[in-house]
Amino acid sequence: MADASTTLAELRDLVRRFVDERDWRQFHSPKNLSMSLAIEAAELMEHFQWIDAAESRRVGDDPAKLAAVREEIADVCCYLLALANELNLDLSAAVRDKMVKNAAKYPADLSRGRFDPPT
Amino acid sequence: MADASTTLAELRDLVRRFVDERDWRQFHSPKNLSMSLAIEAAELMEHFQWIDAAESRRVGDDPAKLAAVREEIADVCCYLLALANELNLDLSAAVRDKMVKNAAKYPADLSRGRFDPPT
Amino acid sequence: MADASTTLAELRDLVRRFVDERDWRQFHSPKNLSMSLAIEAAELMEHFQWIDAAESRRVGDDPAKLAAVREEIADVCCYLLALANELNLDLSAAVRDKMVKNAAKYPADLSRGRFDPPT
Amino acid sequence: MADASTTLAELRDLVRRFVDERDWRQFHSPKNLSMSLAIEAAELMEHFQWIDAAESRRVGDDPAKLAAVREEIADVCCYLLALANELNLDLSAAVRDKMVKNAAKYPADLSRGRFDPPT
Repeated sequence: MADASTTLAELRDLVRRFVDERDWRQFHSPKNLSMSLAIEAAELMEHFQWIDAAESRRVGDDPAKLAAVREEIADVCCYLLALANELNLDLSAAVRDKMVKNAAKYPADLSRGRFDPPT
Repeated sequence: MADASTTLAELRDLVRRFVDERDWRQFHSPKNLSMSLAIEAAELMEHFQWIDAAESRRVGDDPAKLAAVREEIADVCCYLLALANELNLDLSAAVRDKMVKNAAKYPADLSRGRFDPPT
Repeated sequence: MADASTTLAELRDLVRRFVDERDWRQFHSPKNLSMSLAIEAAELMEHFQWIDAAESRRVGDDPAKLAAVREEIADVCCYLLALANELNLDLSAAVRDKMVKNAAKYPADLSRGRFDPPT
Repeated sequence: MADASTTLAELRDLVRRFVDERDWRQFHSPKNLSMSLAIEAAELMEHFQWIDAAESRRVGDDPAKLAAVREEIADVCCYLLALANELNLDLSAAVRDKMVKNAAKYPADLSRGRFDPPT
């Protein structure tokens, strides 16, 4: 997997160059990018709208379907990186900090197998 | 920035461990995770719902606001990584492939300063 | 049911008065209201995020849960009416026209029991 | 406007018949319908993604654009009615109750011209 050797910064640079070459930062306000994220997330959901959870787990069995889902996921990721660029936000640090917070909120022993652990 | 030296795989592992320690993969069908992504994207949008683009660019000036936005962005990122994990999808490759496709769809010279270039 | 005797116009007036009394039309651009709709739809989804379809059909069995879901549905409806007000759009006519279009797109005999009928 | 004389129940019946004729209730779990609502809301947002609030207010000036927006709004409305049908929920009563709650939460005198009144 390229993910093993690709840093967040490399992907961010890829997106930044694309945006700069088209002079698109003028459209990339955090407000607009948050809409873009939600729109792409909805397009991703569309692939799973009418099927159940079990069927959605088998999406990898259908190459055409998987390719379509993979593109929507890429779209979400691109806008996420564009937003991190606009806000000059360290995404890795944000994720690490949030996971620490999540671990405190959902202690492993109380949360095992429960999506709504007692709090 | 930690993004300069953090690989996608490292962040994915962080999320994977968190999910496994809680035995939460049973909830993490692609269907459900696509909903989670959309829900978190909407929570992010909420911060920009009533303000205009210019004001949304100044979100970084207010530390409390920025901290809240940073957390929502982290949530989106965590679910994106969890989904990549479930689908065993190479996120970097998906992003690179999509950017190649985007570059063909939006040639730089025709797209400069236009969000709806002629096609 | 009050729905049997309440017209769309009556509900629209209720929302219009609420908005006008607060001088909120300045915030109610179609752009912002479309975000509001998406945000409220996501809050509604949140109640169904981790449960399966069958369980979601039983939401009416839990009065507290149903009350929460009912409020989110009302929120979606209020913003929908506010948007119809802003755009001066006849909602009933829009729905009727779309249902005619849907009926042509999804002929009953070809669509029976299939969410993705052949087209 | 047809909205002046069309009751909620009439529109609900229209949607109910359409769904029943296609035997689609099997797909219409509240979980799935909440996704549908979010998806259609996102398609509506797409029309306003890159334009500012002022421009979004002028969407009515462009007949083609308005027709497209009108269809997305109808889609949101159809799924909202389908969800009310599934949950056997009185939409008018839900909206009225929520507006009473909103009026208490946002007193007119404190909320005038402020989207984030002091609470």
